[in-house]
Parts: sequence; C-alpha cells; structure tokens
Amino acid sequence: MIATRIVLIIEYIGTRYCGFQWQMGQPTVQGEIEEALRRLTGEKIRITAASRTDTGVHARGQVVSFRAEAVLSPEAFIGGLNHYLPYDVAVKAAYRADNSLNIRRQALSREYKYCILNSQTRSPLREGFSYQVKGKLDIKAMNEACQVLIGEHDFISFASSLEMGELKNTRRIVYLAEVTKEAELTVFNMVASSFLPHQVRNTVGSLIRVGLGRMDIEEFRRILEMRRPSLAGPAAPACGLYLVKVNYPFSFEDVIR
Amino acid sequence: MIATRIVLIIEYIGTRYCGFQWQMGQPTVQGEIEEALRRLTGEKIRITAASRTDTGVHARGQVVSFRAEAVLSPEAFIGGLNHYLPYDVAVKAAYRADNSLNIRRQALSREYKYCILNSQTRSPLREGFSYQVKGKLDIKAMNEACQVLIGEHDFISFASSLEMGELKNTRRIVYLAEVTKEAELTVFNMVASSFLPHQVRNTVGSLIRVGLGRMDIEEFRRILEMRRPSLAGPAAPACGLYLVKVNYPFSFEDVIR
Repeated sequence: MIATRIVLIIEYIGTRYCGFQWQMGQPTVQGEIEEALRRLTGEKIRITAASRTDTGVHARGQVVSFRAEAVLSPEAFIGGLNHYLPYDVAVKAAYRADNSLNIRRQALSREYKYCILNSQTRSPLREGFSYQVKGKLDIKAMNEACQVLIGEHDFISFASSLEMGELKNTRRIVYLAEVTKEAELTVFNMVASSFLPHQVRNTVGSLIRVGLGRMDIEEFRRILEMRRPSLAGPAAPACGLYLVKVNYPFSFEDVIR
Repeated sequence: MIATRIVLIIEYIGTRYCGFQWQMGQPTVQGEIEEALRRLTGEKIRITAASRTDTGVHARGQVVSFRAEAVLSPEAFIGGLNHYLPYDVAVKAAYRADNSLNIRRQALSREYKYCILNSQTRSPLREGFSYQVKGKLDIKAMNEACQVLIGEHDFISFASSLEMGELKNTRRIVYLAEVTKEAELTVFNMVASSFLPHQVRNTVGSLIRVGLGRMDIEEFRRILEMRRPSLAGPAAPACGLYLVKVNYPFSFEDVIR
C-alpha cells in the first residue's frame, strides 16, 4: 500500500489537555487525534504538529500532518474524524499534500494571540478563555514595548529555563507584536518565525508589568538585551493563549498531488 | 429600616439555566442572584429584570433591580455577590438608584445579538455560544430583509403563539436590525423598544431562510404583513442568543441619590 500525506487544520479548547504532545497516560490533543485516526482508518498513525502548544493553551488553526494508507478523500477525513473526536477538538479543513512536506520546518511563521480581560470584575462568558487583570492597562505603553520585540533578536530572556537544554539557537524573527482592543478584551497579537518555550506567555507577563506602570520601556528593552533565560515574565496563564494560524510559503490546495 | 434601591448589571452563560425568571425547583439566573443576595445580606430579596431571557440564552448586560435594607456600597454588592454567585453568573457593575426607578418600564430599548457559525465544520471554541449553519449564507440578502423590520410595526408574526395570551399590544419599534461579520462569526444585531416572546430567534430563523435562498425578500415582508402568530421562524436555537445591553434615558450614575 502507498501511504498518502494528509494535512489537517485543527481547532481545540486546551483546558482539558496536558498540551498538544502525546504523553503516556495523560489526556493530550495529539492522543485524541491519533485515537480518532485509529478508529477511522484502523491504522496506528503518528501525527506531527506545526507548533506544540502547552497545557491549557487553545488553538484555532493548529496544523498537523501524517501519512495514512487509507484511501479517503479530504472531506471523508474531516467528517470521519469529527465524528470520533471529543467536543473540544475539531478538524476544520483537510488537504492531500506532497509526501516530502515537513509541516514544522517549512512553516514560515506562527501567529499567536493572548486575551486579557482588563476588568475589575470577572466575566463568565470569557472565563477559561482570557486572563483577568484588574489594574488599568496602558495600551499605548504596552505597544511601545512591543516595538522593542520586532525584528531578529536572541529571545532567550523570554524563554523558560526548564526546557533550555534542547535549544541550540534562540534567535527568532518577530514580524508582528501589538496590543489591540477587541470588544471588551485587550488582545496581544504576535507573529514570529517560531517561538521559544513559553515565549508568548513570558512576553505577556512583562507587557502587563509595563501596562500597569511597574516597568518602563528601558527596563523592558534591557530584559531582551541581557539574554538571561526566564528574565522576562512572570508567564501569564495558559488559558488566555491561542495558536491562531501557521503560515507556509504555499497554500495547501496547491500542493495536492 | 429604610430600603435602598440597587441596580446591577449582570453577565451570564445561559446554558445551565431554565431562563432568567424564577421557577420552583428549576435552576434560574434569578434564583442564583436572589440566593447570593440572601447569603450576602440575610434578607429575602426579590429582583426584577429589564428583559427576561429564555432557557439557554446568554447575557452580557442584563439589568436587574431590587430594594435592600443592608447598608452596603455598590462596590460591596459587586464583590460580595460575585463571591457567592456560581462561575456562570457575575455582577459587572452596581449603582444606587432612586426608589421610583422601574427597570422594565423606563428602559428605552434592548439590544440583542445572535451568533451564527456559517461553516461546514463545527467549532469547539464557539460550541454552546453560536448556532452552526452549514449552507453558505447570503449576508447581503439577509440585510435587505432586515430593512423590512426597521421602524414601528405589529410584530405578532415573529412571536411564539404559546405566550400570546399575556400580550395586549404587539407593536414594537425596531431601531436596528443588521447582519455583520465578526471574525469567523455571522452576527445578527437587533435593537428594539422591547421584544415579543422568541422574537429575535424567530427573526433569525426567517433570516437564515433568506440567507440560504429558500425565501425571498417579498415572502419575508409578507410574514410581517400577515400578522399571524408564529408565522416567522423556525426559531433559531437559544445558544446563539445574547442580551447585550439595555438602554435608559439616563446613565445610572446620574440617579444616585
């Protein structure tokens, strides 16, 4: 049998999961998708993801890829997997792709957003999907700090020291970093070539300090320049973070064989 | 003891509740708020709401009012009630008001929104907070139909026949009715003097028929003109509906004694 490479766009609520990546005996998004694939195709399939999200982090456009022997149309993968997947994980789109595709290495950039509820009172409708900050945030000051991040830099100060061992190169290119208002939420959007462990959450932690007037732009700049792991932060909680989109130098429709 | 009138702005997720209004032995938003008031003040307090929402309907800005003997600041009502309220109901603001205030009769207008997920695939992040319509909706046609609703009309065709008995006057003024795109959602916004039972959901049901090309604008107009209860619809499900805001001819800060 000849295996076909399939790409899926996945949306999930991260709350119930110990992150994307498979872990023995733990609920993970990867575990759910692989189990749904097993039930749909009868095959034991291992998937790879473009961006591994942490425990509790949500995704609107995670990209995963795998090879399957089953001869199913992309539409059948969408319908079949959504039938077997739990309520908090769904396939949004599916494409056939070239066998040589590397979903992680060929990605040009990843887009994340972080939702802050800047309010004195909690919000039931945003609970579990945003982080409440009670003090008034100065969005203008936060956006000035964001400017420091744009471009290619060594972002080691914004990474957790925990997983530093694996990282050889801590330089990344940040294409966009900005804070906007969306309805009652204060939203931080960040697009980068790729991200270091906890980079978005540590960035948000420092930006909140700037927004509350507890740190000025020069201190924020020094965090980046000092290049010391975990200097930024504290990491904002996972519940406010979403993987929005992964960008490629092609659209998936084009690479259908 | 002299009782003071208090106004609260309330946000809730309607999913777990048999509507706003108190019912014996059923979970209701009114029941939760009155229980929290009892625990905070020790008083048996009855509240009234500006707009009674149905089973499963959410609210971002419900307005309730009551008289309490407890001498508490508005801030103490916010903090104290939020301590006792369940996760899916929260007080967003509190004001002291004039004793003569009638929260229902003095309201100028109510704003509702209805969220449609116009997508072939389900969305975990929108589940329970939108209604999925798989066929492609023609937003332009829906907005043309919306124009029919603007102004003062007898909206009896858009009301459920169930509760018609109570209604003496079925004329209402619609100030705004429009369909917009908000991120991946198709959102129907409606502002009216007040609403008949199930009016928004029946309106959305008919608008979806227009959007799918199953009904033209003239048929939509005839529904309004024929004045027959329940002619519009079918009612779109409650999970997509939100009470957004209630408008008054004053802001509550002004009526503080």
